[in-house]
This record gives sequence, structure tokens and C-alpha cells, in this order.
Amino acid sequence: VTEFAGRVDPEPFSDRLAGRVGARASQLVVGLDPDPMSLWPRAYELAESQGPGKAQTSPAARAAFAVAVHCTLVIEAVADHAVAVKMQVACFERLGAPGWAALAQTVNRARDRGLLVIADAKRGDIDVTAAAYANAYFGATPTPYGEVSGIAADGLTVNPLLGIDSLKPLVQAAREHGAGVFALVRTSNRGAADVQDRVLEKGGTVSERLAAIVHDLGREGIGSSGLSDVGAVVGATAPDRLARLRELMPEAVFLLPGVGAQGGRVEALAPALGEHPASLLISASRGIVGASAGQGGNPAKAARLEAARLQELAWNLMD
Amino acid sequence: VTEFAGRVDPEPFSDRLAGRVGARASQLVVGLDPDPMSLWPRAYELAESQGPGKAQTSPAARAAFAVAVHCTLVIEAVADHAVAVKMQVACFERLGAPGWAALAQTVNRARDRGLLVIADAKRGDIDVTAAAYANAYFGATPTPYGEVSGIAADGLTVNPLLGIDSLKPLVQAAREHGAGVFALVRTSNRGAADVQDRVLEKGGTVSERLAAIVHDLGREGIGSSGLSDVGAVVGATAPDRLARLRELMPEAVFLLPGVGAQGGRVEALAPALGEHPASLLISASRGIVGASAGQGGNPAKAARLEAARLQELAWNLMD
Repeated sequence: VTEFAGRVDPEPFSDRLAGRVGARASQLVVGLDPDPMSLWPRAYELAESQGPGKAQTSPAARAAFAVAVHCTLVIEAVADHAVAVKMQVACFERLGAPGWAALAQTVNRARDRGLLVIADAKRGDIDVTAAAYANAYFGATPTPYGEVSGIAADGLTVNPLLGIDSLKPLVQAAREHGAGVFALVRTSNRGAADVQDRVLEKGGTVSERLAAIVHDLGREGIGSSGLSDVGAVVGATAPDRLARLRELMPEAVFLLPGVGAQGGRVEALAPALGEHPASLLISASRGIVGASAGQGGNPAKAARLEAARLQELAWNLMD
Repeated sequence: VTEFAGRVDPEPFSDRLAGRVGARASQLVVGLDPDPMSLWPRAYELAESQGPGKAQTSPAARAAFAVAVHCTLVIEAVADHAVAVKMQVACFERLGAPGWAALAQTVNRARDRGLLVIADAKRGDIDVTAAAYANAYFGATPTPYGEVSGIAADGLTVNPLLGIDSLKPLVQAAREHGAGVFALVRTSNRGAADVQDRVLEKGGTVSERLAAIVHDLGREGIGSSGLSDVGAVVGATAPDRLARLRELMPEAVFLLPGVGAQGGRVEALAPALGEHPASLLISASRGIVGASAGQGGNPAKAARLEAARLQELAWNLMD
């Protein structure tokens, strides 16, 4: 941290990330998108023995408890092989208030195990509202009763459709807290072609325009690692686009979802690498958490093995 | 409702909306985006006398209580002049679990007063995740402990950057519940120009491409009013674009935010009108809730007067 005139600047996100990636020799981000109907069996057992009982509480509270236990088990299983978790906020949001509490608890569990936390919320709105989301994810909300802390994420996925002024409050809040944002540039789904792949009259695709925005917004957030605090979400399912996007965003950290269940292969991702190992984060969710599906066996053991495999595959891209 | 082979189809969203707009002679949507630091004074008083005390509970719970009281007061003040409330989810989300509970309570208060509820969440994600958001806003989440109901919104704003396959689960869930979605087409902020106004090689802007998607997705959701259940968010701040967007989306309900505080003028919105009064919803937030700011006086009375004024201005567009 740098201290100047009494103000303490946090270590930039990219340097914190670079330090963790180096120390753990991992660029793996484990996605947590818990479905209450398909948690690990052990989570249901623990929820039964330790959770709130049927008599006292709502289905939402019971499900949220089981979801939080499940996420803790996944974190314990994969922590040694990952650098971050990516929490799919929708999966918590659908459980209402108890789901939101479970999200906050899971963030703390991940942090306790030395993992960075990326909130996969894909938020985006006009400036006033973006500032409210910034309070929710990076800062705190002032109230007459005291400040209400947000979930203190290390990273947040954001949707850039509303343009630069909608992103600035989020980038600024992230920067003040040593966190980062990851803007959608080219997503992993087939429908990405409908808008993002459209070619602009002045040249380049909509995705490439988004890449230029990411690059511009990141200029003032470049750490000593050479990486910026404005990253890009780029689907692992469209590897042919990676080289061009890397060219447009040389300092951005690429967060690449879609490995595994969605069909993306780590071996094809080398063009996404920048100059630093932390320039590329691969994200897998169902492929890790559901690794035992089909073959049976212990889900935690299967998840750990799959995480280790992906960790190594990604690390080998640098050879 | 239509019953067929034991299955009850809900009344389509657009017909429900059309009915309400007609009965209330109002196309006004009142935006609720509560800032805990600037609630109506009466909300703080009621929270002090009826809310949880300092000793028992957290700043978040106290702030969420005051926010819910404030929203109830606003709803009471404007209910006779509006057809719906638009709840800015970010403002509740930043208060964590208690905020989420306040959101659900406010939805119920609005419904009790005969108002439709539009959740302004601007969600958008790949299909699996979009289905999770659909559970949160329209349906319910299955869990081993019973179903967890979502907030049962009548409408949800969605971000279409991820394309058609990302919108389908939301449109489908909305349709099954007699609700609707409003996709961002051309937002009210200046930054909208950065991406949405870009011209495509094949002609038209990105916004116009989004409009075509809205039109296509809405085709199967057209009610007897001639309106569809896939609407469009079109900022009231760029009236010169309205005629072209209406041409591209003849059956869509236009939700026009940006009236008042953001500079949009109701008088300029006539080109957004389709063939039915309910084809146009104007949305004002700070302009109504903060109507007494500057001039002083009773906030509820000022809000009611401003709501009545906007209601009449909009209704007169049809002359």
C-alpha cells in the first residue's frame, strides 16, 4: 500500500491478482452456481444435521443454508488449485433474503481460504444506479444508522451496453478498493453472435468496440504487473476471436468462462495470453463441481482432481 | 384466463397492462430508487417509532425498514395517478439481505394498491443463468425443502447484449406467468451513444438491431390489445429516435425512463405512441419522489401533484 497525505491507496487489483496467481501457480477460477436441487449429497446431510429445522424456518432459509454449506465444501475441495471463485449471483438472488445472506457467507469462506472473489452479476445501469451497485459490491452504503457494507468483492462482472458513463462509477469504486471489473466483451453463448459479432460501419465488431472501451477505461488502473483493473469477459467457446481481442486489450485480464460444460477447451486459449500469467483466468463451473457426475464417486475428490487438471493445463499454456 | 386441457393460461401481460391503463387513465410509472440518506422525513419518524431499535439490529436492517416505509408512503401518495411502480433493484440490493426483504415487502404494498410492479434489474446472462433470474423475478425455485417463490414481478427490465438465447428463458417465464420483459433498446444516459448508437455495416444502429430482436421475441406474445409481452426501454431523453424505433417495434410497449430529473420532456414523446394507450409508459423517479425539493412543503403532496401533472401530460399525447 502507498500512503500519501494521510490517504492509504490499496494495492491495485491487478497486482494483488498477479501476486496470487504467481504464489499459487494457478489461473483457475472456480465457478459457484449452486442449484438447490443438485448440491453435493454431503451438503444435504450437513444441512439436515446442523441447519435450521423444518419447524422454525422457511424453505428459502433451509435451501440457502444448504447452498452455503455446499459452496463451503466446494471451496475446501478446490482451494489449493484455484486463485479465485466466481459466484453466480443469480443463484443466490433467487433464494431472496436468505440467499443474499448465503452469498455474503460464501464470500467470507472463500476469502478465508485465500481465494479472490469475483461476483458474476453482470450489472450495468445509468450512473446513479451504477453507483448503487458499486456500493453493493465494492464499497458501503451510507445510511443514518451507520454504513452498510457491501459484499466486498475483488471483482465484478459488468455489462457495458450502456456505455462509458455507466461503467465509470463501477471502475472508480473498484479502483478505490483495490478491486477490478470484468466487462462483457464476447460472451460464451451462441446468442453472442446476435449482437456482439455484428460488424460496424466504421470497421470491427460490436465486441471490438467494447474491447476498445475496456482498454480506455483501464489505462489509469495499470499496476506494476503491467495489467489493468478493467478486465474482459471473453468466452472460451470462441477461440478464433482471442488473438484479435488480446491485440485490442493488451493490459486487460481476460476472464474466460465456458471451459468444460459449455464446450471450451483450455488448450485452445493460448492466444488469450498477454505478457503476464495473470492476464488469463480460466473459469469452469459445472465441469468442476459436477466432475463426479456420470462416473460416480466422491464429488469433492473428483472436483479437486478436475481443478488440478485444469490448473495444470492452463499453466502449461505459457510454455 | 383461458383453460385448456386442465392448464390455466394467465391473461397476457399486455392485456393486463392495457386494462389497467384504461381503467386508471394513466400511463405513468413511478420509479422507486430509495437512497437511505434522503428518504422522506416521515419515513425516518415512522422507522424511529415502529422500526427495530438500535440495540436489537444492524444498520442494514434499520435502513431497510426505513426504505420500505418510505416506499410505502410514496406508493400511497401516487397510487391514484399511476399504473405501475418501477423498482430500482440496485437500491435494495446494496442493503443486503434486509434490503432484499424490503424489496419483497414493497412489491406487495404496490400490488395491494392495484399497481403493477416492474423490477428494474436490467438482468441478462447465458441461458442457464437467465433461467435462475427468471425464477427470482417471475417464478419459483424448486428446492428439496419446497418451492421458493420469487418476487412475482409483472415486468422485468433485461439487458439484451448476450443475444436471443439469453432472453428466451426470461421471455418464456414471463409469458407463463402473465408478465412481461422490457429489453434495453436505447437507454436514457449520454453513454448510450458509445455502443447503442453505433451504425452497423448492414445498416441501422445497434439499438435498431436490438429493436428487431424485441420485435421477433414478442411475436408470440401478442394479446388482444395488439400489444406484445416483450417491451422496450427507450430513454425519454432522445426523442428524435422514437419514431424509427416505433416503426421497428409496432406491438412493443415502450417504457420511457428519463422524464424529469434526467431532462426528458413528456411533450416530446408522442412519436413513441403506438395504436394503444398502453403502448407508452412514461417513468419518472426523482422528479416525483423529490418534487418538494427546492420548493419545500409536504413531499407526499408534492409527489401526488407532480404524478397527476405527468399523468395528464402523457394522456394528452393521444389527442
